[in-house]
Amino acid sequence: MTEHIVSAFENELKGLAQRVAEMGGLTEKQIVGAIDALIRGDVALASTVRAADPTIDAMQREIEEVGILVIARRQPMAIDLREIVGALRIAADLERIADLAKNIAKRVIAINGSLPLPKVTGGFDAMARLALERIKEVLDAFSQRDVAAALEVWKSDGDIDALYNSLFRELLTYMLEDPRNIGACTHLLFCAKNLERIGDHATNIAETIYYVVNGTTLAEERPKLDTTTIVAAGT
Amino acid sequence: MTEHIVSAFENELKGLAQRVAEMGGLTEKQIVGAIDALIRGDVALASTVRAADPTIDAMQREIEEVGILVIARRQPMAIDLREIVGALRIAADLERIADLAKNIAKRVIAINGSLPLPKVTGGFDAMARLALERIKEVLDAFSQRDVAAALEVWKSDGDIDALYNSLFRELLTYMLEDPRNIGACTHLLFCAKNLERIGDHATNIAETIYYVVNGTTLAEERPKLDTTTIVAAGT
Repeated sequence: MTEHIVSAFENELKGLAQRVAEMGGLTEKQIVGAIDALIRGDVALASTVRAADPTIDAMQREIEEVGILVIARRQPMAIDLREIVGALRIAADLERIADLAKNIAKRVIAINGSLPLPKVTGGFDAMARLALERIKEVLDAFSQRDVAAALEVWKSDGDIDALYNSLFRELLTYMLEDPRNIGACTHLLFCAKNLERIGDHATNIAETIYYVVNGTTLAEERPKLDTTTIVAAGT
Repeated sequence: MTEHIVSAFENELKGLAQRVAEMGGLTEKQIVGAIDALIRGDVALASTVRAADPTIDAMQREIEEVGILVIARRQPMAIDLREIVGALRIAADLERIADLAKNIAKRVIAINGSLPLPKVTGGFDAMARLALERIKEVLDAFSQRDVAAALEVWKSDGDIDALYNSLFRELLTYMLEDPRNIGACTHLLFCAKNLERIGDHATNIAETIYYVVNGTTLAEERPKLDTTTIVAAGT
């Protein structure tokens, strides 16, 4: 390759990473919007979040197309190839995160904006704050190719799981206390689960960063602290 | 390219499609296992399903690796490139489908095998049967590169959504009837949602088949009939 071509290739790689960073920014905005809508009972904001989702889907498709074309045209090896594969994987995770935020927004519309249980606001606020922090940290780690920071995110997913478990139990209690809460609490259970899954995607992204930089896969199994599927039913 | 290389390349493409088909077969088996475990209350079977999931994850990673390497090495154009991208996308959908089946299995273990409400068996059986049929149909459509069959799957996702809506309402009713049902019904709500999402992935795969064969994206918005997020809460 001539230097001219190498440099064009490097620009392509940078452009791809830049596009992933933009997509990450929009995705963060969607999480913030969905949670603000939930906590404030803001149906108009929820509708805005819902309407913005196709833009993020389109960004993912574009990143995939560009990435695949660059692989086919440049035949990159080793680290360069991993950079592109990493961008594709992270874009796929961001698309799914945005989808989970959109689903929260849809449920805000379903419960007509009124959070029927102001007492769960704190639980959602804490979970959302933590999920958002993890996404920010892991996207920063990606932009710096900082494996140590990525590993921190990967190791700390248990914190979100713990908040989820406690919120899950709290919601079940309110359903048991008063059957009139059941309909809305069901939506809130799914919202809480969505935030927990956003945390899982942050750890996926951390694994991708590890792979991009080191060329190997994080072998160790991540400790999984979601215990709601092992809680005795009927409680 | 010499004929020898072209033929090696064609073998690589065939090998990739073959691997996706195998992964599809295993994924179908996971759905069947998860649902049988749920309906029969078979914790041992649920554990088997759970234990088989890492194999499917590993297959997806392998398909991704091989696909990307083939793109980088062969620089395929147009239809060949789409074949590979299609294999990667379908493998990603299958991995997520298997994950949803695993999650159902985990919940069977959580409710300790006892389906507390024999009356919902019918609803789950019908939904699972339909979801499985869609997956089979769409995998057949992929192996035949049959766009018409893929479009049939794509158009008929509303059937699963309709069953989901009715099961969702049924489960809410049982929760309202007797608070002792709430814990288990919560798990069953997530199981039902998982089956509905399996249906969504079948339509994703149908879209991928359309893209592989035609080189364009299905533009039309698929009619979405999941109305549980627009049902009034608190009912």
